[in-house]
Amino acid sequence: MINTLYLPELREMLETQDTAGLEEFCTALHPARTAEFMEGLSAVEAWEVLRHTELRNRIEIFSYLEDARQVEIIEAAPPEETSALIADMPADDRVDLLNQVTPETFGQVMPLMPAEERRDIMRLSAYPEGTAGSLMTTDMAMLPESLTVRAAVEEIGRQSEEHETIYYIYIVDDDKHLRGLVSARQLVTHLNKPNMPLADLVERDLVTVVDTDDQETVAAKVADYDFLAIPVVDAERRLVGIITHDDVIDVLREEAEEDAYLAGGMEPLAESYLDTPWWELAWKRGLWLTVLFLAAILTVTTLKNYDEILDRVPWLVFFLPLVISCGGNSGTQSTTLAIRALTNNDITPRDWWKVLRREIGTGLLLGGFLAVIGYGVARLLTNEPTAYEALVVPITLVGVVLCGSVIGSQLPLLFRRLGLDEALMSSPFLSGIIDIIGIVIYMTVSLSILKELAP
Amino acid sequence: MINTLYLPELREMLETQDTAGLEEFCTALHPARTAEFMEGLSAVEAWEVLRHTELRNRIEIFSYLEDARQVEIIEAAPPEETSALIADMPADDRVDLLNQVTPETFGQVMPLMPAEERRDIMRLSAYPEGTAGSLMTTDMAMLPESLTVRAAVEEIGRQSEEHETIYYIYIVDDDKHLRGLVSARQLVTHLNKPNMPLADLVERDLVTVVDTDDQETVAAKVADYDFLAIPVVDAERRLVGIITHDDVIDVLREEAEEDAYLAGGMEPLAESYLDTPWWELAWKRGLWLTVLFLAAILTVTTLKNYDEILDRVPWLVFFLPLVISCGGNSGTQSTTLAIRALTNNDITPRDWWKVLRREIGTGLLLGGFLAVIGYGVARLLTNEPTAYEALVVPITLVGVVLCGSVIGSQLPLLFRRLGLDEALMSSPFLSGIIDIIGIVIYMTVSLSILKELAP
Repeated sequence: MINTLYLPELREMLETQDTAGLEEFCTALHPARTAEFMEGLSAVEAWEVLRHTELRNRIEIFSYLEDARQVEIIEAAPPEETSALIADMPADDRVDLLNQVTPETFGQVMPLMPAEERRDIMRLSAYPEGTAGSLMTTDMAMLPESLTVRAAVEEIGRQSEEHETIYYIYIVDDDKHLRGLVSARQLVTHLNKPNMPLADLVERDLVTVVDTDDQETVAAKVADYDFLAIPVVDAERRLVGIITHDDVIDVLREEAEEDAYLAGGMEPLAESYLDTPWWELAWKRGLWLTVLFLAAILTVTTLKNYDEILDRVPWLVFFLPLVISCGGNSGTQSTTLAIRALTNNDITPRDWWKVLRREIGTGLLLGGFLAVIGYGVARLLTNEPTAYEALVVPITLVGVVLCGSVIGSQLPLLFRRLGLDEALMSSPFLSGIIDIIGIVIYMTVSLSILKELAP
Repeated sequence: MINTLYLPELREMLETQDTAGLEEFCTALHPARTAEFMEGLSAVEAWEVLRHTELRNRIEIFSYLEDARQVEIIEAAPPEETSALIADMPADDRVDLLNQVTPETFGQVMPLMPAEERRDIMRLSAYPEGTAGSLMTTDMAMLPESLTVRAAVEEIGRQSEEHETIYYIYIVDDDKHLRGLVSARQLVTHLNKPNMPLADLVERDLVTVVDTDDQETVAAKVADYDFLAIPVVDAERRLVGIITHDDVIDVLREEAEEDAYLAGGMEPLAESYLDTPWWELAWKRGLWLTVLFLAAILTVTTLKNYDEILDRVPWLVFFLPLVISCGGNSGTQSTTLAIRALTNNDITPRDWWKVLRREIGTGLLLGGFLAVIGYGVARLLTNEPTAYEALVVPITLVGVVLCGSVIGSQLPLLFRRLGLDEALMSSPFLSGIIDIIGIVIYMTVSLSILKELAP
């Protein structure tokens, strides 16, 4: 939703060239709020507003604008004006931005960039999306351990503006090999001992990630260890960047989003619901929906095989959707449990036997309970089956819930073992499989119980 | 999974009273790793190990142990030994821990606590779970704005040990009213101007939360603004605590977990899959499964109403599961989209009309596409229906996918408008509704197309 509260005033100020008013607007509020109030402006208007504040604040406000809006602005504004902003942006955000602009804009902006920034952009953009390298920033505080506490504090004070965080200071040797970490807290605590060598404060047992690590691994480490930032090293253990807590929060939100869409049986959206064109929505859904539809066609052929049974015992049809939905629901529950447990590293595929035992127990208990209700329904709601014949329903229900639970929990383990993403093992996909198994169980139980079906 | 790598050595050291070895074990690694290696020990053994390191490090390692293990240790170890640890723990973790121990242990530990800590525990434990107050810690750095930069740094250096973070320093007046914030970065940058008044560095436009705010609100604010910590104020805007980035990460993970379980049609688990007793699993699933089962019983009575149709046109049964699963799948997709969009504040219930239009468009397109395949299947896989009769299948599919999309997307909006949690609007629950609608559409279309059903 777009916040339009200040929009008329902003437009008025732009029209009347009210420099003082625009400067005030840019500095009065937290940059995140300022960005929020600018949402309704066109890209050209937004840049015009941003020009009224100094570079540092301009970058701050800009960083809180939505990604798509940032791209629009960079494409709309003159490159000779935006290049300074891009050059001074945090290294990780800058690369994300430049990855999204048109090749023309990229070609115009890059030559205006200082050589060092240009190299940094090229290096970072070489990391594939979803790796630690693609998340990290190269703006971290690095010091040699030969400094004293006083010299370190002075140096950090001088560099402060350039870094994304100065609260973790990384200790590196001449070849940028990571030797350890000193926290700003340690420095401040020891300011009364200004000549203490930094080496005395260095924490050497560091948890690091490698630049090619998956972003989920990174997020889990930062979350488990409560870090502000985690250092990223290359294969030679040279410090190449850091990933800060706010980027980890973004990853966690993104992964949770993705898992939710996959569990709902569709491709994750890249943008918000209303910003996604409806035909793109249809595409992201259509792919999965079609696969699920093709799987469901198997139920047609399966049922056709049993047409004689259905013909001779018409009341069996009444319970068909009930039987199928029961299997689907218990399967969905078990799949959810297995996927959560795998994601949280509570289980690995090696635990299949432990999982199997629990799911057999749960499946029998739940199936048994539903079977009791199901038998009552079969007796009370329909007059056709006799007390003996109606046993088809409860026996089928136990079988279906048991199968749903066992298959639903084992398939994600199998997927993981095969090196596939178990989140793709979405509940609708599973339902497709269980639908068919449910029909087969139902018909098999009917064949063996019902006398009129005896050969 | 329990890490048993060091377990034999640890037990050996405990048995031989190897003080030096145990001291070394407690300090050699990152406390989080040390805690991991202690997982296999009994509560009594774990405390025996922890006794071999000084209080500060003992608290660190303890804080990385699982919650349930922390409770066990506090219950097993002598209160006169654990009280010092509890008194010095971060204020928020301490309350969480004491909320879980038995009343006896609580009664033994509390009198051993310093009066100030005791009051703090009582105050924090009064906040209901899920509020900002229940998440916050009271260990924040507070200074009056009358100090100079030098005095502030010295003061912070002295207090450093007591606070959860010293990187945000809150400026309060004599009554603890929140006046602003100075970051440690600002202090370090201005160390070369030691006599500068702190007042010159104070950022006054602060984003805060109120102690009664919901934890989701807190998490969203910290995530949106990339804060290290957010100040918590009471109704009179007095600073009562702060919530740090690591607690926000925990909230985000917890909420994502909860949503995933609800989407899977079950109550969220409190513990990990393997740690949850199987009958508790059955209970958390059984409640929902039974409700869904009762809803599905309606399909039995619905089908019974149409028994004549099914009797006269037997091939209609073959497509029943296909029709139902199609509606369920498209409904699940739309519900997932609507819930995500509501959670991310992309839409509100007022946008129902915008959502409706898009879902009608998507539903018609997807339904139309599946209808084409469906018609082919009806013609090719079964010989019974004529070219005209087989039209029942595609027309039904369009209707069912359209209904699934529309109902699936509107119900979460309705839930939200009624003040209910739309995440409860899980996909299996929705499927129950759509199953029945699917049957009704299928039978109605059949009645109007098939000549032999004409009255």
